[in-house]
Amino acid sequence: MNPSAAAIRIQKEYLKKTRKSHALYKRSVSCFPGGISHNIRYFAPYPFYTKLAKGKHLRDVDGNVYTDYWMGHWALLIGHSHPIVTSAVRRQTSHGTLFGTVNKLSLDLAYAIKEGMPRAELIRYSSTGSEATMYAVRLARAKTGRRVVAKIVGGWHGYNTNLLQSVNYPFELDEGLGLIQDEEQFVESIPFNDLERSLKILDTIRDDLACIIVEPVLGGAGCITPESDYLHGLQEFAKRNDALFILDEIVTGFRLSFRGAADEYKLDPDLFTLGKIVGGGLPIGVLCGDKDIMSLCNPVGREKSEVACYIGGGTFSANPLTMTAGLATLKHVKQNKSAIYPKINKIGTRIRKGLKKAFSDGGVDVDVTGIGSLFMTHFLNKDIRKISSASDVGLSDRDLLRKYHFALIAKHNMFFLPEKMGAISSMHSLKDADHLIDATHQIVQSRLLSLSK
Amino acid sequence: MNPSAAAIRIQKEYLKKTRKSHALYKRSVSCFPGGISHNIRYFAPYPFYTKLAKGKHLRDVDGNVYTDYWMGHWALLIGHSHPIVTSAVRRQTSHGTLFGTVNKLSLDLAYAIKEGMPRAELIRYSSTGSEATMYAVRLARAKTGRRVVAKIVGGWHGYNTNLLQSVNYPFELDEGLGLIQDEEQFVESIPFNDLERSLKILDTIRDDLACIIVEPVLGGAGCITPESDYLHGLQEFAKRNDALFILDEIVTGFRLSFRGAADEYKLDPDLFTLGKIVGGGLPIGVLCGDKDIMSLCNPVGREKSEVACYIGGGTFSANPLTMTAGLATLKHVKQNKSAIYPKINKIGTRIRKGLKKAFSDGGVDVDVTGIGSLFMTHFLNKDIRKISSASDVGLSDRDLLRKYHFALIAKHNMFFLPEKMGAISSMHSLKDADHLIDATHQIVQSRLLSLSK
Repeated sequence: MNPSAAAIRIQKEYLKKTRKSHALYKRSVSCFPGGISHNIRYFAPYPFYTKLAKGKHLRDVDGNVYTDYWMGHWALLIGHSHPIVTSAVRRQTSHGTLFGTVNKLSLDLAYAIKEGMPRAELIRYSSTGSEATMYAVRLARAKTGRRVVAKIVGGWHGYNTNLLQSVNYPFELDEGLGLIQDEEQFVESIPFNDLERSLKILDTIRDDLACIIVEPVLGGAGCITPESDYLHGLQEFAKRNDALFILDEIVTGFRLSFRGAADEYKLDPDLFTLGKIVGGGLPIGVLCGDKDIMSLCNPVGREKSEVACYIGGGTFSANPLTMTAGLATLKHVKQNKSAIYPKINKIGTRIRKGLKKAFSDGGVDVDVTGIGSLFMTHFLNKDIRKISSASDVGLSDRDLLRKYHFALIAKHNMFFLPEKMGAISSMHSLKDADHLIDATHQIVQSRLLSLSK
Repeated sequence: MNPSAAAIRIQKEYLKKTRKSHALYKRSVSCFPGGISHNIRYFAPYPFYTKLAKGKHLRDVDGNVYTDYWMGHWALLIGHSHPIVTSAVRRQTSHGTLFGTVNKLSLDLAYAIKEGMPRAELIRYSSTGSEATMYAVRLARAKTGRRVVAKIVGGWHGYNTNLLQSVNYPFELDEGLGLIQDEEQFVESIPFNDLERSLKILDTIRDDLACIIVEPVLGGAGCITPESDYLHGLQEFAKRNDALFILDEIVTGFRLSFRGAADEYKLDPDLFTLGKIVGGGLPIGVLCGDKDIMSLCNPVGREKSEVACYIGGGTFSANPLTMTAGLATLKHVKQNKSAIYPKINKIGTRIRKGLKKAFSDGGVDVDVTGIGSLFMTHFLNKDIRKISSASDVGLSDRDLLRKYHFALIAKHNMFFLPEKMGAISSMHSLKDADHLIDATHQIVQSRLLSLSK
């Protein structure tokens, strides 16, 4: 079968098994721009509609059951609807979901976070990661009295105005309509894993540099791990020049290990952000770090002339339902950390090796990046031989990646959000890894992925 | 008893009955800047810690039960933990809290919103109101190609960088550290209820005016209703000058009526934002409005050269738990709207009249502002005779207001977040109104509020 015939057959299979989703999508486009509430949740020809999520599985409205490697934007370390979390949330629901006041649950979750991450000397909760990174920037500017924020080319810190820069390939273009140049002029982008060039750029802005914010492992940009000494080089530059070093651990926190990427890579950030896992599947963002810096946002007991840095908060911050879900999750992870992390990391390793071999056996040239329970396939071409930055990902064959992920969804009931990295939860098994590798082998054999360009 | 002796006695009563809260607060300050995760949740000497919230009541860790007039930042129209919402959320919890994919629940909630507010031609969910207003601004700039945002002096649209301007009295000062002047230069503030001055200011920026964003009833600034024709005047100016008119209905949506403030005041906004009530007590923000404008953020099916306006979204957007809670709430409100709105509005009216009389009988000069189920007391003085703007609130006697609210908490077990407006839920009764009026009468008689300045 030639590639386009294979693609057409796969599309037909998807259409046939997702008829109810198709009908719902047709209704959705008259309610939501593009039929979605998050740009990346759309994929062609239309996304399936999830009805139930349990453990490692998603079930859609047509009854198809998918093994989930997207895991709620990589937030669900212990799977969907884990009984430990579910029972705690159900209990709390009857006791209040939004007190609108202080509560002990937020203190308990803070202790749980501090246990894994003692650098969280002081903590402030918000409701999304996007808010947390926005507040990190504000706090850095408040601390330093400087304006410029250095971020990584392709680094993703949410949709906030402050950091929505150089996110999508090609990175030198504006990130869409509605952002004004005056907001953009104080964001400088540096290339991941290229310390020499990064330092050169940083050097030109060091007098006005408020902070360097970086994901230790690039997540949205394509699951790219840091090369030896890159992060240390940035950290050292920041500290030497009185700028803050901010680690965005929204993806990596409590995923790489119970102590996060700062511990994994022996880093000492001034501030860091959390989200996803620490909310146990409910909305959260967390800003944490050095107590002197964090104290700048303390509104209590200031003299009238003394001005604080105003950061959220928000109506839903520290709400008892999120606190409960996060606490149940971190408690469970802590109790089982010597089982969970070796297990998910082992599955991750088997997948990275297995996928590489499956593709290479079929003559398809790929790089499979990742660390621990995170992984992603990149289709190489004559220009791109290795993936070590977001630009490399941008130049790789995204069309093949889409086809590969869609074939996994349509034909093998394995869900990757197309073009996004995969994550393993504690509910996955080594057998799942083997199934994924086997399915990949079949897809390679089907010639779907040949001759794309 | 002289006023300060009365104040000291009340403080003692609070300390005595909130010992466990006091102990928790001491621990909280070593976890959170100021011990809180939202600036306004602190009040002196320390806030009580809520353990349980049910109907119109909060119960704290010491077992004190308060009649709640804060109602989760005014979000809980049908009370805390309403059985209808609770049972729906409990059921959904076992079926998944964060699919990370599209789902039918978000469609169902969209239909429920459209039923009350047909101007919501297209909708996008975010997780907080702060995100929704930030995206509204971005979309307005995308639509108009202009930069300036006009907001109301004292208007509150969340902690986002775009709109954190002229929020706190005195309004001409910067809103704290960490906001840079270049971000602030495109926000222009206009005085609420002063159409002539507002139009004069708007006229100077009309060529670069992207939008006017306004809360129809100022909420955080002090529960101030619009005078006849003010909002219409702004709307007309916006439409005549090709700027967008954006109504921030995060507080008023589904509160003033099932159709919101746009219907109440016969307005026709281009975009509007929702939050609070539509999430049923779980985190939500919603951006809605004209389909041509909203379509600018549609990422699907664009040509490569055509750029969209990138707005969230976010990991937790349209999550099935929030969708379920919001849907259960709106369904219940719709079914009972002919009972709920007349009831809460009647209670509101009785409170506004009753408080005014209780204070006036005691010789204390106040204005009680509000509409429907929203109300707030303002202590007047020789300069301020009437409250019609945020500046008036700023010049009123805030110290007396704090004392009054604290006395209600400490002595009468009635909870207002000090200095903030009160909200009635469908769980409140006319008897509650009478109790509040009676408590106020007693406080006035105690002379606590005399001779403050």
